Amino acid sequence: MEILVVNPNTTASMTARIGAAARDAAAPGTRILAVNPAMGPASIEGYYDEALAVPGLLEEITRREREAARAGTPLAGTVIACFDDVGLDAARCVARGPVVGICEAAMQTASLLGGSFGVVTTLQRSVPALERLAQRYGMAGRCRVRAAEVPVLALEDPTSGALERLRAEIARSLDEDGAESIVLGCAGMADLARALSQEFGVPVVDGVSAAVKLVEGLAALGLRTSKRGGYAHPLPKAYAGMLAGFAPV
Amino acid sequence: MEILVVNPNTTASMTARIGAAARDAAAPGTRILAVNPAMGPASIEGYYDEALAVPGLLEEITRREREAARAGTPLAGTVIACFDDVGLDAARCVARGPVVGICEAAMQTASLLGGSFGVVTTLQRSVPALERLAQRYGMAGRCRVRAAEVPVLALEDPTSGALERLRAEIARSLDEDGAESIVLGCAGMADLARALSQEFGVPVVDGVSAAVKLVEGLAALGLRTSKRGGYAHPLPKAYAGMLAGFAPV
Amino acid sequence: MEILVVNPNTTASMTARIGAAARDAAAPGTRILAVNPAMGPASIEGYYDEALAVPGLLEEITRREREAARAGTPLAGTVIACFDDVGLDAARCVARGPVVGICEAAMQTASLLGGSFGVVTTLQRSVPALERLAQRYGMAGRCRVRAAEVPVLALEDPTSGALERLRAEIARSLDEDGAESIVLGCAGMADLARALSQEFGVPVVDGVSAAVKLVEGLAALGLRTSKRGGYAHPLPKAYAGMLAGFAPV
Amino acid sequence: MEILVVNPNTTASMTARIGAAARDAAAPGTRILAVNPAMGPASIEGYYDEALAVPGLLEEITRREREAARAGTPLAGTVIACFDDVGLDAARCVARGPVVGICEAAMQTASLLGGSFGVVTTLQRSVPALERLAQRYGMAGRCRVRAAEVPVLALEDPTSGALERLRAEIARSLDEDGAESIVLGCAGMADLARALSQEFGVPVVDGVSAAVKLVEGLAALGLRTSKRGGYAHPLPKAYAGMLAGFAPV
Amino acid sequence: MEILVVNPNTTASMTARIGAAARDAAAPGTRILAVNPAMGPASIEGYYDEALAVPGLLEEITRREREAARAGTPLAGTVIACFDDVGLDAARCVARGPVVGICEAAMQTASLLGGSFGVVTTLQRSVPALERLAQRYGMAGRCRVRAAEVPVLALEDPTSGALERLRAEIARSLDEDGAESIVLGCAGMADLARALSQEFGVPVVDGVSAAVKLVEGLAALGLRTSKRGGYAHPLPKAYAGMLAGFAPV
Amino acid sequence: MEILVVNPNTTASMTARIGAAARDAAAPGTRILAVNPAMGPASIEGYYDEALAVPGLLEEITRREREAARAGTPLAGTVIACFDDVGLDAARCVARGPVVGICEAAMQTASLLGGSFGVVTTLQRSVPALERLAQRYGMAGRCRVRAAEVPVLALEDPTSGALERLRAEIARSLDEDGAESIVLGCAGMADLARALSQEFGVPVVDGVSAAVKLVEGLAALGLRTSKRGGYAHPLPKAYAGMLAGFAPV
Repeated sequence: MEILVVNPNTTASMTARIGAAARDAAAPGTRILAVNPAMGPASIEGYYDEALAVPGLLEEITRREREAARAGTPLAGTVIACFDDVGLDAARCVARGPVVGICEAAMQTASLLGGSFGVVTTLQRSVPALERLAQRYGMAGRCRVRAAEVPVLALEDPTSGALERLRAEIARSLDEDGAESIVLGCAGMADLARALSQEFGVPVVDGVSAAVKLVEGLAALGLRTSKRGGYAHPLPKAYAGMLAGFAPV
Repeated sequence: MEILVVNPNTTASMTARIGAAARDAAAPGTRILAVNPAMGPASIEGYYDEALAVPGLLEEITRREREAARAGTPLAGTVIACFDDVGLDAARCVARGPVVGICEAAMQTASLLGGSFGVVTTLQRSVPALERLAQRYGMAGRCRVRAAEVPVLALEDPTSGALERLRAEIARSLDEDGAESIVLGCAGMADLARALSQEFGVPVVDGVSAAVKLVEGLAALGLRTSKRGGYAHPLPKAYAGMLAGFAPV
Repeated sequence: MEILVVNPNTTASMTARIGAAARDAAAPGTRILAVNPAMGPASIEGYYDEALAVPGLLEEITRREREAARAGTPLAGTVIACFDDVGLDAARCVARGPVVGICEAAMQTASLLGGSFGVVTTLQRSVPALERLAQRYGMAGRCRVRAAEVPVLALEDPTSGALERLRAEIARSLDEDGAESIVLGCAGMADLARALSQEFGVPVVDGVSAAVKLVEGLAALGLRTSKRGGYAHPLPKAYAGMLAGFAPV
Repeated sequence: MEILVVNPNTTASMTARIGAAARDAAAPGTRILAVNPAMGPASIEGYYDEALAVPGLLEEITRREREAARAGTPLAGTVIACFDDVGLDAARCVARGPVVGICEAAMQTASLLGGSFGVVTTLQRSVPALERLAQRYGMAGRCRVRAAEVPVLALEDPTSGALERLRAEIARSLDEDGAESIVLGCAGMADLARALSQEFGVPVVDGVSAAVKLVEGLAALGLRTSKRGGYAHPLPKAYAGMLAGFAPV
Repeated sequence: MEILVVNPNTTASMTARIGAAARDAAAPGTRILAVNPAMGPASIEGYYDEALAVPGLLEEITRREREAARAGTPLAGTVIACFDDVGLDAARCVARGPVVGICEAAMQTASLLGGSFGVVTTLQRSVPALERLAQRYGMAGRCRVRAAEVPVLALEDPTSGALERLRAEIARSLDEDGAESIVLGCAGMADLARALSQEFGVPVVDGVSAAVKLVEGLAALGLRTSKRGGYAHPLPKAYAGMLAGFAPV
Repeated sequence: MEILVVNPNTTASMTARIGAAARDAAAPGTRILAVNPAMGPASIEGYYDEALAVPGLLEEITRREREAARAGTPLAGTVIACFDDVGLDAARCVARGPVVGICEAAMQTASLLGGSFGVVTTLQRSVPALERLAQRYGMAGRCRVRAAEVPVLALEDPTSGALERLRAEIARSLDEDGAESIVLGCAGMADLARALSQEFGVPVVDGVSAAVKLVEGLAALGLRTSKRGGYAHPLPKAYAGMLAGFAPV
């Protein structure tokens, strides 16, 4: 099967690292198609970047699904590889296969491994959005979100001190909050999970890997988004201006 | 003061009706600037339409604020006139003045008038999104959302039977759910509140009017969105492609 | 329009300061009638004072509404100017116009300006009552209540050190709790909001001003308390003894 | 030991029936002092009656405690025998011994006997207040409140049809809501519990009896209200007017 | 009446101390039958011990109820004297009389004495189980659970330093968490409540005593577990192997 | 990899059907070891059966893990194939690999496919236990549990009418509760998911398949239960009597 992994920002080096993490996680028969939109923000740090990342994300999903279907190899499902689960609801309305966000994937996975968990993300400005996701996913009583005050793209720079700040916050999560496991709160941290797990002696969950496994599972069971209720296919209607091409048909 | 009221869909006739309702509600000294984006969906019915309405909405807010500031008459604040509170978080990050969504405005207002209330919206597919907003606003235990199965634009057509279906659902909300007041769950219903209130003998709250009053209040008190935390101004960064013009500076 | 602002304690100097804050907030066409009961506690610090403040409050509301109606200038609505929202439910049962408490007004207002907020009140003994209000208003997950350990009437004495203790607690709310804005948890702090907002660079919400704006808004829209359900007019019945005059008719 | 049972309304015949139910429930060594205030409403039906019942209730508790202490036989504790738990918080601030409301007593007791329970009260206007109590006591997810539309004092009149309406609502609670036991939602129903339990084959809990047993238990263990925090003794201060006699010393 | 108090671990010295605490709490006419199973763990420290304590507990309840019934002196009810409320649901399915766990008893009792309370238990590994019970009993918003890091059986050894660690954690609960009263989170602490209450000047609740009083109350009122729904008597069926004797008939 | 699937009841025919469903779901490289305990109840219908199923379940897990480890082919993880998630916490304390219950697996899976879902289980007496699991897993606001009143083992008898009753309840879940997908609430329904999904046109989730995929995913990522906190390995101690063999070492 082939799984689409969309990094909703436009930074290709980050897409490459996300793709590598996804491939590491994928089962032998799974191919990973890691992409990013041609339009939108270079990184997603807060609600505004989030909102403007969605059109590119949706276009990417629609186009890749159409191409794969034409090629006779329909996509098995989609991973949205931004920890804000950007555009998840809209994507579920239009995608043929199941769609999983890396925040929901990571939180669900952590909830199978211990009673409570800590989420360590990049910037304080992202914390409210993640707390709201935790509430939406029924996890608000089980986790506390902390920020390491590391800009997203600093994770790619070994001289930025980002890893040290991340490790300090993991330590506080375990010691002060009583977390039993850790969730890495940014797609850009995907490659760090294994080493941090060994260092701290607790499960450390990366959402990209977790989401790939969930999509593999859903696809193998033939499960797709319900088209009854909130995720029904969009009604056909006119869209105007620059976004006219997005009009549902 | 001048308040920007943005209808985030592109249907000008609906913008006109929303503008009229806003003007009806406005205080003597308040001017209403009712606009809609040049790009995006003709109506908002579900998560997909929601997501694609946001860029146009944000562009409209940014542009109108800039124009007003240049003219020396800065906007007092903004109302987002779609009951899904489309783009509310992103708008708060960039707008100078306070931003209020009509769903939050209507729910807050209803909560001041009675113990529990019913929300009557257009289509079943919109119910999950409104239930999630009710949870986010702390109102989930106080309201039940019902759909009249009326397409948004049918509200403009007197022969569509839309009003009858809406009235039937209000009656069920009062009789079966024990609602003490009613919230109209679509900006396109703004002009119906007064007549329905008289007919049913309970407060019927329209979000457009409610939001105009809240923005007037915030502006008069000099209160604006906190720039500490989740609504901090977006960090400057590159945006690519069709959306390059949205890049924060 | 004329708005009744009732300080439910009997300290006239505090009523004067509350009235001044209300007038500062009021729109050009709004008159403020600031009063306090002739009977009851000199300040409200805990559940016992709260309970005994209610009869005086209700008498004041009933009498002022009757007088205004007789004079042909019915009151537009009522603000209860004690942060415990003393007697709010009972007042809604008997008042003709809408009734708003300053705690609910301040919390609603703060929720429009940021994701989470801190409440800073006077005494630790008042904290449980405010936490319960936060739960009732659906705000428990968004705020933390702190006490500055300042007696209510000490706020009137510039030599009491009250302001310093209040400022220290605001600082802790921002730094330790991650609050994005601040709510002043006592009617006696109404005149401090603006200066504290400038000092700390975040919105600081005073409930008296917030409630005046909400009542102005409700009144302008013709919205009054629902008489269906919990706020129905009291059933006529005999009241005995000292309280016989309160019997509903 | 002697337990004070206060019916907070002024109807002596109802006090007599409450006293009888309390005596039925009391242990051999327990004396019941069943009283009602000299001032206040003849029955409690809604928030307004509630609020005006409190001064008489508090006066009764304070006076009876003082008399008993003078007589060298201090009261063991107090039951507030109105299902709205009227004045419970204020009473805890001033009473020497523990204070238990019959709503909290009945809900706690029912929660020991089954997973979910139904509450059947008198009038629809009382339902919102009881739902709020259920939330406060952590029972909102376990119960549903129904009204039999029976005025409180009709329970004393065998020709009123009140019992039939009550039984019909119990049946609906079991059949439609899946209740596993029943709570009688009015002190005036205290004498009906046993017969209804036999008729319906499920536990039927009366709050007066339940509260008497809880106070007996607390008193026997030497447990009293904590004086740390919200229930600290009221601070001494002046009270004005008709309520001057209530001033804490 | 006779109340069965089952210590679900197999340590007879702890059973003796629990029995003594129960007898101290019991009313003059109440006999306490304090027992422990012949099979299962010597102490209960975590989920695994919990699960393996249940068969012995159930056997003890069934056997003691049968013996008492045969002797013509049926048991009035049962206390499960482990703070994890081990086997409570299963016991309610088979016991004739009411069954109360000491955690639910202590939490209910504490909730009658103050607004919030602290729970101090033995080991960190038991904290998640107690937090889950607090959520189940509707008390999650009112308490915080702390561990003194004291093994259960160390409570029997005066040289272990256990008491000092317990007192330190009580102090933190009061000072840092704002607890208004304290719940002792282990049956082995039953004899410490009175002295700790005097030392700290707040109510300190022991679950064994609290549960004895609740069972006395339920029994006196003739209230037993509802047999409608989740606590219906087990359906007759075959049980295999070592546990064949547990098969319901 | 090899996954242990434990049916915690002793009915071998049901184990066979569960094993078949697990094998259908398993990836090419996954072997399924489907077993049931030698001791305990023939079916699990309510809390009592649940509790007595746990020792056999734990023995099976411990023995199978030990055997596999000795054979040099350690188990990848364990599925507990009873919808009550019987013994899940205890199993996590002792198992080497991850452990997943079929209720949590099914609910998590359903939450990825739609906004709300219906759970259809066997008997009304099992509903409270499943509602409590839904609350524990953060899903209480998203699902409603219904019982088809079908005994567990009747699912194996095509003449029992069980399937018809199950289908009727699914229809009610979709029509009356607005469910967007369906969860089958019993391991014995595992083979029905695909056909019911086609019939009703919505995703129908079987927990056995869902749990197999989750364990495959966790194992592939090297994730195991956290040993910090509630799932720490049991402390070594004596166990007495018939259960002596269960003592942790």
